[in-house]
Amino acid sequence: MSDGALTLSYSPASPFARLVRLAVAELGLEARLQVATVAVSPGSSDADYVARINPLGRIPALTLADGSVLVDSHVIVEFLDDLAGGHRLIPAADGSTRRHQVLSDHALAQGGMEAAVALRYETVLRPEELRWSVWSDDQWAKVARTLDWFEARTAVLATPRAAGPVDVCQLALLALLGYLDFRFADRPWRDGRPQLAAWAATAMARPSYAATAPA
Amino acid sequence: MSDGALTLSYSPASPFARLVRLAVAELGLEARLQVATVAVSPGSSDADYVARINPLGRIPALTLADGSVLVDSHVIVEFLDDLAGGHRLIPAADGSTRRHQVLSDHALAQGGMEAAVALRYETVLRPEELRWSVWSDDQWAKVARTLDWFEARTAVLATPRAAGPVDVCQLALLALLGYLDFRFADRPWRDGRPQLAAWAATAMARPSYAATAPA
Repeated sequence: MSDGALTLSYSPASPFARLVRLAVAELGLEARLQVATVAVSPGSSDADYVARINPLGRIPALTLADGSVLVDSHVIVEFLDDLAGGHRLIPAADGSTRRHQVLSDHALAQGGMEAAVALRYETVLRPEELRWSVWSDDQWAKVARTLDWFEARTAVLATPRAAGPVDVCQLALLALLGYLDFRFADRPWRDGRPQLAAWAATAMARPSYAATAPA
Repeated sequence: MSDGALTLSYSPASPFARLVRLAVAELGLEARLQVATVAVSPGSSDADYVARINPLGRIPALTLADGSVLVDSHVIVEFLDDLAGGHRLIPAADGSTRRHQVLSDHALAQGGMEAAVALRYETVLRPEELRWSVWSDDQWAKVARTLDWFEARTAVLATPRAAGPVDVCQLALLALLGYLDFRFADRPWRDGRPQLAAWAATAMARPSYAATAPA
């Protein structure tokens, strides 16, 4: 595993980058990490970033000490978890489907973030006369159904399924809910979801959450 | 690991579902798999599917014999790879960054698919008077830069980095290129990318490719 400094390309407002920063904080890797803020948005991506770091023009990306780059938050989180000793955020493969289930549940929270960001693009970035309510309604429906899914599965919330005090699925859910509080305060997700709200009240009290706040 | 029948929810045109079907074929798991076609598109998702299988309304999803569900193609491919004995498509964690690099390169190809599908939505599904050329140009730029990235990294194409004859990154690239041939024949991606075109000519001759054609 690579030693030396790691550089995380991120933007303070990105929920995907926040997931990685939550993982860094929970794994105690802050001292290993440098951060570089990058501005990426449709039509105005940072030219140097897309040329050297990530051709997709997405954040986060992690540049390793040898200059190689890892993209996509789930890949970066697995790398960081391995760097910190392994299986604190993501369970080991053990012949059961536990690891796959955690990664799948994580993918749901990640997909919720993608829908929320797509909704933000549609309702803020896109010129007003080109907005399509079918699209924005559909993105919010994805977010709402994903939250309902977690609300109905308190076991996923109650107990981490890896060795650490929180698992990667829970961190992704936290990043999603934090993004909703940050960008969609006018859509109160806690209404009708008491289990999720109660879980979030506790999880948001973790020092990693305050340390990675977008503001 | 779960025995018994697996059910893949998919759509013939989806590149994400094709990646999973390529993995099934390459791993020789066809006999284990049932398939169920699902129609998901913005504003008209299958109500039963989003209620029972995937709240995001995305495909693919894999329902296991015990009724549990895995979503997201990278999670499903890892499950299938483990089911087939492990590390034929995705390298084992070995203390180096090889596994993470393959997963990251796979994420680039996957991101290329996402951009290509977003471009298709913008240019076909969205009402014509609501289309935004800044957005569609940006999505195609993501695809083009990702293809250029692979064109410049022939090592990624030349040799599989896991134990099987093709790795997950190569399968994702194949699914992306197949989608471009299927949906964007008017944008000839082979032009100016001779390495990628030569690699694709060989890879597309694999029986798994014909067996998973969208048409």
